[in-house]
Amino acid sequence: MSDDYRSMWTDLGLDLEAHDALLGVLGNAYREIYLAQQDRPEGMGYFDFVMSEVHGLRIKELLDEKAAGRKIVGSYCVFVPEEIVLAANATLVGLCSGADFAMEEVEMLLPRNTCALIKSAFGFKIGKVCPYLESADMVVGENTCDGKKKAYESLGHMIENLYVMDLPQMKSDQGRALLKAEYDRFKAAMEVLTGVTITADALKEAIRTVNAKRAALHRLLSLRAADPTPISGLDALLANQVFFYDNPARFTASVNAICDELEKRVAQQQGVFAAGTPRILISGCPQAVPNWKLPWIIESAGAVIVGEESCVGERGTRHLTDDTGRTVDELMAAIVDRYFQVDCAIFTPNPDRLMHIKEMVGAYHADGVIHYGLQFCQPYLMEAIPVEKALEDENIPCLRIETDYGMEDAGQLKTRVEAFVELLKP
Amino acid sequence: MSDDYRSMWTDLGLDLEAHDALLGVLGNAYREIYLAQQDRPEGMGYFDFVMSEVHGLRIKELLDEKAAGRKIVGSYCVFVPEEIVLAANATLVGLCSGADFAMEEVEMLLPRNTCALIKSAFGFKIGKVCPYLESADMVVGENTCDGKKKAYESLGHMIENLYVMDLPQMKSDQGRALLKAEYDRFKAAMEVLTGVTITADALKEAIRTVNAKRAALHRLLSLRAADPTPISGLDALLANQVFFYDNPARFTASVNAICDELEKRVAQQQGVFAAGTPRILISGCPQAVPNWKLPWIIESAGAVIVGEESCVGERGTRHLTDDTGRTVDELMAAIVDRYFQVDCAIFTPNPDRLMHIKEMVGAYHADGVIHYGLQFCQPYLMEAIPVEKALEDENIPCLRIETDYGMEDAGQLKTRVEAFVELLKP
Ligand code: SF4
Ligand code: SF4
Ligand code: SF4
Ligand code: SF4
Repeated sequence: MSDDYRSMWTDLGLDLEAHDALLGVLGNAYREIYLAQQDRPEGMGYFDFVMSEVHGLRIKELLDEKAAGRKIVGSYCVFVPEEIVLAANATLVGLCSGADFAMEEVEMLLPRNTCALIKSAFGFKIGKVCPYLESADMVVGENTCDGKKKAYESLGHMIENLYVMDLPQMKSDQGRALLKAEYDRFKAAMEVLTGVTITADALKEAIRTVNAKRAALHRLLSLRAADPTPISGLDALLANQVFFYDNPARFTASVNAICDELEKRVAQQQGVFAAGTPRILISGCPQAVPNWKLPWIIESAGAVIVGEESCVGERGTRHLTDDTGRTVDELMAAIVDRYFQVDCAIFTPNPDRLMHIKEMVGAYHADGVIHYGLQFCQPYLMEAIPVEKALEDENIPCLRIETDYGMEDAGQLKTRVEAFVELLKP
Repeated sequence: MSDDYRSMWTDLGLDLEAHDALLGVLGNAYREIYLAQQDRPEGMGYFDFVMSEVHGLRIKELLDEKAAGRKIVGSYCVFVPEEIVLAANATLVGLCSGADFAMEEVEMLLPRNTCALIKSAFGFKIGKVCPYLESADMVVGENTCDGKKKAYESLGHMIENLYVMDLPQMKSDQGRALLKAEYDRFKAAMEVLTGVTITADALKEAIRTVNAKRAALHRLLSLRAADPTPISGLDALLANQVFFYDNPARFTASVNAICDELEKRVAQQQGVFAAGTPRILISGCPQAVPNWKLPWIIESAGAVIVGEESCVGERGTRHLTDDTGRTVDELMAAIVDRYFQVDCAIFTPNPDRLMHIKEMVGAYHADGVIHYGLQFCQPYLMEAIPVEKALEDENIPCLRIETDYGMEDAGQLKTRVEAFVELLKP
């Protein structure tokens, strides 16, 4: 990357040496896991470029936006409504947290028994290696799982403008009222941050922008119902990941361009894996960049991933926001309605998630489900047990995986996944 | 115990063989840990009797109450308001969960990485060894930590009448409104269960009954400020534990009787440990019967425990409920106000707990704090880190312990505690 970027990173306060190390690891992983794939759609070239510039061009764009007076908002959860951020003329970026970093320092601040996602968020901050985090004018935390909820108390001492959003634990009337009150409070906070008063027109346009990128992704994901599937699970996951930090309009256009290509592939029965390859649905915890370990193991084991029931996947994007409201109140209510449907395991009970898993198994013709739980993630590890039971009761094979970001268990995972894939073969 | 009890246990559906095994372990532990102590107050004879009849006489009393038409309600958390239960003419019992049981079956239903308290609650149910649980007409769960919140989803399949109470995560206006709405809903549920309409008079009397047992305990706990302390930490913990399932009026009278004796001891400077013995405050997760491991290790290491900042301790009992309201609404509001002060680590932020720890260190002249965290309890293990830092910033030594119900780590804990106690010696 150019010298420009090095001075940009220095200005952001990054630790250049540590950052070089991180980029090295990221680049290697991308080459070995992504570029080594066969028969990728040509349109994936866009994502290859995005990934090669993930800490370069995209950061430069964000800094240019900042120079022009636009605010950058970072988030760790799909409950932070991008519609509201865009309507205040600000930009939302997901703060990925998909790799271990500065673990020794992290374990001074967090219990050892903390999920890798949270540890990673701390490591990126402590290690000064995340230009998104350092670019953000405001970072939004949320009371989801115990781990994040309590971790934000410490993270607040390290991040200047950490805003914490409360969230309900039940899909009750009181729960909805809390979400509404919190989204109203967030709207006011965004207005203060940006100095922009959110109008109905701006909100409507923001809803349409976010819906458009969701719709593009839906189009891509639905093409995976074909056998052979026209795109690998790894590549589809990458599209789901880039969703969180790319420019929305460009992302939408690029994904739609890939879809045009994939439609031709489907028509020609051209796929990345042979027809009849065992088809797997992944369900569980979010998989943030560059946490590609499990999908890589699965697709190296001779199966293809046909869907992600995950926040970096359909749980995060499947619902559109109704854009027909005419007033700010009506549109805000539509936003509340939309997000209140997200079936994260932090809710109790959470029956919609199981229904959606079954729906996805049907829609994508999956032969089995691999439940991906991050070690120490109580909500998903707990929910995995009844989910597995319910699936097996309907003769849908299920494999429960509990892992972290380390590679120590890769061999053991490989063995278990291979055995599972073997089971799925006709 | 008498044959009467065996047929009573059989009628309750207990697994007699497993239950015998549990009582055997409990009895042995009690003998080795409690009865082996020196210079115990005579009044502790009451608690020795209570413990020897814990699955006998007390259960018979509950069954007699049931025969007379009274309902029994079980709970796993101090957020379930005993005032409301008593006002509906029902009896509340804590469901202890302080021992491992049926662990193999438990780990089929819960992730391995679940705290011992939750595993124990499942083990007691699966193993059919808890006569309190089997006597209960309703069991109340609550959305506190992720572990319990999600575990109740499975427990609901095993317990007929499991009622789940939602709880807030923040001490905000919305949070208070949720607690109020949930207590109103709980009041209505209790009225349905018992067929009793809760009146202002009944509520007022219930508040006074519960306040009286809290006040008796405060009296006992405050006597521990003396040096030498007139009662061991183990014995004080037992009083805190029995609080949850004894008959309220008898408990109050018995604790007050012990206090009369302890006051004399204090006047005569008579103690269970020599004056000048290092004094320790325990802070953290609840310690349910028969989880006496850590206090036993501490007091065997030549220190005395002078306070419990715990839900089985002052966090659970320190606040009284205002009984001056004249209407049901006013009294219910007072109940909400009282419980909304409970500073459990599930809240974010939770500054009151740290303040209270410091207060207790001062009030009981503690030389140091041992933070007790159950393995995999994210709320308390997370909060322990800033708590330790804040204490050490004020030169209050702090030792963070993370453990479970097993005895495997007893040797290692002993070594760490002994070294800590050594530090505290003048
Ligand atoms: S899994 Fe839950 S907490 Fe995590 S990003 Fe999704 S909604 Fe947020
Ligand atoms: S993976 Fe689980 S524990 Fe980790 S941040 Fe997400 S919900 Fe919380
Ligand atoms: S520690 Fe929290 S969840 Fe546990 S009993 Fe106390 S208030 Fe309830
Ligand atoms: S000890 Fe911690 S994890 Fe266990 S039930 Fe209590 S709050 Fe939940």
